[in-house]
Amino acid sequence: MSVKNYIQEHQERFLNELLDLLKIPSVSADPKFKADVFKAADFVKESLEKAGADKVEICQTAGYPIVYGEKIIDPNLPTVLVYGHYDVQPADPYELWDSPPFEPVIKKTPRHPEGAIFARGSADDKGQFYMHVKAFEAMMAEGDMACNIKFMIEGEEEVGSEHLDIFVKENKEKLKADVVLVSDTHMISLDNPSVTVGLRGLAYMQVEVTGPNRDLHSGTYGGAVANPINVLCNMIASLQDEDNHITIPGFYDKVEEYSKEYRKALNEAPFDLDAYKKELDIDDVHGEAGYSTIERVGIRPTLDVNGIWGGYTGEGAKTVLPSKAYAKISMRLVPDQDHKEIAKLFEAHFKAIAPKSVKVKVTPHHGGAPAVVSTDTPGYRAADLAIQDVFGKSAIPTREGGSIPICSLFQKVLGLDPILLGFGLDTDALHSPNEHYGVKNYFMGIETIAAFFKNFKEEASK
Amino acid sequence: MSVKNYIQEHQERFLNELLDLLKIPSVSADPKFKADVFKAADFVKESLEKAGADKVEICQTAGYPIVYGEKIIDPNLPTVLVYGHYDVQPADPYELWDSPPFEPVIKKTPRHPEGAIFARGSADDKGQFYMHVKAFEAMMAEGDMACNIKFMIEGEEEVGSEHLDIFVKENKEKLKADVVLVSDTHMISLDNPSVTVGLRGLAYMQVEVTGPNRDLHSGTYGGAVANPINVLCNMIASLQDEDNHITIPGFYDKVEEYSKEYRKALNEAPFDLDAYKKELDIDDVHGEAGYSTIERVGIRPTLDVNGIWGGYTGEGAKTVLPSKAYAKISMRLVPDQDHKEIAKLFEAHFKAIAPKSVKVKVTPHHGGAPAVVSTDTPGYRAADLAIQDVFGKSAIPTREGGSIPICSLFQKVLGLDPILLGFGLDTDALHSPNEHYGVKNYFMGIETIAAFFKNFKEEASK
Repeated sequence: MSVKNYIQEHQERFLNELLDLLKIPSVSADPKFKADVFKAADFVKESLEKAGADKVEICQTAGYPIVYGEKIIDPNLPTVLVYGHYDVQPADPYELWDSPPFEPVIKKTPRHPEGAIFARGSADDKGQFYMHVKAFEAMMAEGDMACNIKFMIEGEEEVGSEHLDIFVKENKEKLKADVVLVSDTHMISLDNPSVTVGLRGLAYMQVEVTGPNRDLHSGTYGGAVANPINVLCNMIASLQDEDNHITIPGFYDKVEEYSKEYRKALNEAPFDLDAYKKELDIDDVHGEAGYSTIERVGIRPTLDVNGIWGGYTGEGAKTVLPSKAYAKISMRLVPDQDHKEIAKLFEAHFKAIAPKSVKVKVTPHHGGAPAVVSTDTPGYRAADLAIQDVFGKSAIPTREGGSIPICSLFQKVLGLDPILLGFGLDTDALHSPNEHYGVKNYFMGIETIAAFFKNFKEEASK
Repeated sequence: MSVKNYIQEHQERFLNELLDLLKIPSVSADPKFKADVFKAADFVKESLEKAGADKVEICQTAGYPIVYGEKIIDPNLPTVLVYGHYDVQPADPYELWDSPPFEPVIKKTPRHPEGAIFARGSADDKGQFYMHVKAFEAMMAEGDMACNIKFMIEGEEEVGSEHLDIFVKENKEKLKADVVLVSDTHMISLDNPSVTVGLRGLAYMQVEVTGPNRDLHSGTYGGAVANPINVLCNMIASLQDEDNHITIPGFYDKVEEYSKEYRKALNEAPFDLDAYKKELDIDDVHGEAGYSTIERVGIRPTLDVNGIWGGYTGEGAKTVLPSKAYAKISMRLVPDQDHKEIAKLFEAHFKAIAPKSVKVKVTPHHGGAPAVVSTDTPGYRAADLAIQDVFGKSAIPTREGGSIPICSLFQKVLGLDPILLGFGLDTDALHSPNEHYGVKNYFMGIETIAAFFKNFKEEASK
């Protein structure tokens, strides 16, 4: 029996195991889910053991643990290091989910006519890293392991991978490999399979603006005392000019400018602006003047408010002039912006623009460096060949707007370009209510991963 | 025994009865307190009956009821209509209260060395309207009623007094009086007793900005799709220019401009800017260019965001580009601005400035008209004389920034100028955590109200 047949034969179990994993609300950002995050680590450990991995261990950190496991078939064969994460984004707002986020259900959608699994983490990243566990099981069961394998599945990706950083630096020998393989991105579609070769970095800040020392009556004090919400809105508005350029001094200093040819090639990727607008139900797109939508998400940095709150937000009306207002503001970064430097520029600028009538506090949350992956490597060629084997056509190299901060870590510390072989779609509602992952994407992904191992063995020996 | 002695003799009970009333969380804005709002109406009814009122009844409306009661001593005597409200503002944020908002405690403060009652509604308005019930009881007990009295205590002041409007229009005969007496404002201090002669109006709006039809991943879509929070911040920021003038077309068309002399007189009221800033812990005040703090809260209209929310507001970081963002925005109005017209101007302008990339919904909450009270009336003179009797000095006429929308209702429908004889202080934290009301203010208020009746009988007959 072939690996492909093995996968087909065990489809139902492969799916049910993933559903079990999705039932664990392993939200790393919210301390109330702490026990569940640890439970998810245990689940990963057991599944690696069952699939046939050796030296499986839960590596404790000062935060959430990293699950490691390996199978060294032959020290002379190339080694693939698989990276993924078992933690998920918070699921709120819960009321916008059509079904509870941690009770996975399979439903058909226009983009997933064979059905998609609706659950928080289905695409990001449980459903994607678990494909590697199942591909490994299939290759082991069929005695068809073309390369050695090492797994490193972490639980803090959604909060900045702080302890992975330390772990990788302290375990260079253990993690020694010839390529890092990551499925935590999306492709254009199953008809236009693509491999991500660029990712944006991230600087994430929380700001707090304080006006008076207590909430005030807006009648008695309104108009005479600075309202921190109005001030915060003014400050946020001023962070971008009329062309949606970011006004933080020095922000663009290290942004890589691309040639006309490069930009032309980038814009040749299949993209239907009308379908895009229709799918999001918007009358117009919005972004930096002088750039296309593909460029805006691929090669340009951005600034988005991810959350804002202050004053009375309940039912009805309350005439309060609040003491405080807050916002979470993140910036997506492109090569060669340094996220720590950008965080400092933001903080200095935000404090500088605050009027004297308020006090401002700026707290950086996690950040991550942008990454660009070369297409001229055995790893990329193996990914392209694997996609050709399973999808029948070559992969389109794309730039994706999201961030996987650990990519630059792998490049810098392990000297390895990560291969971003993701199988989600951009409509999978990552980080949103009703996140889902196509059932077909899941199984084609497992097959492609197995094909990658075969091709990588060939390419690495060339 | 005199009325004054009666009040002193029953101090403890007068205080305890108020504490019992303050224990009822009669928050009219929040439907979950519905039963408590009705309970507060029952409490008012019983206390009027015990004090000696006739024809006490709970007048049902389509919203919360109005409690009515009267005592006609002699049809030939002048009649005082007492207005107050038994509903209170929401108490959130609860975590900022030093003691639970509906468990009143008495504590000393620098401005209340004899102690103040800390509870939601202590100053606004339970502690203030209840002074009238106790003054009435004392006058009745001592056989010393100089005028007839009618009580009209409502339960919807904090949500716009919608049904009071109808009630007053339908009960003109029943409410016939020579003056309306209201204690729902503050004085400068017990050393500088004042009577409010101007109040601002109010237009209160809720806005909703919708970008994409669902929450999106800010990495995948950020920079290319309008973020409704950023857009909302831009729109709010644009509502005021650099001089803090409001930019809504037509907004100032009907604003009364005052003479130099009038403004000079207004600015002669005792006011210590340094103490004001210190007390609020702010380094600078903030407001419309060209006006003093007293003018900014007294004779100029304002625009304040009372609440804002959108996106992820929990612990940690979530990289979401939200579908929606919301704000509650209120404008304080001055004569002769019409709150309904201003609400329309706001709505038209807010929709006009929305970029094509978002959809905007504007919902008006309650509003109220501004009011100016003449000082050349028997009612005002009686108030001034009563203050002289109890405080030993004449009242300073002041303009207050808050709104009591029913004032213009009394003027238009009943043809009566309300006398705004309030005993709170501007530091009583109305609408804020730790609202309180001075014990001394409470008892001096009861005494002053009784003195008002004596003086009004004299003044009305001149």
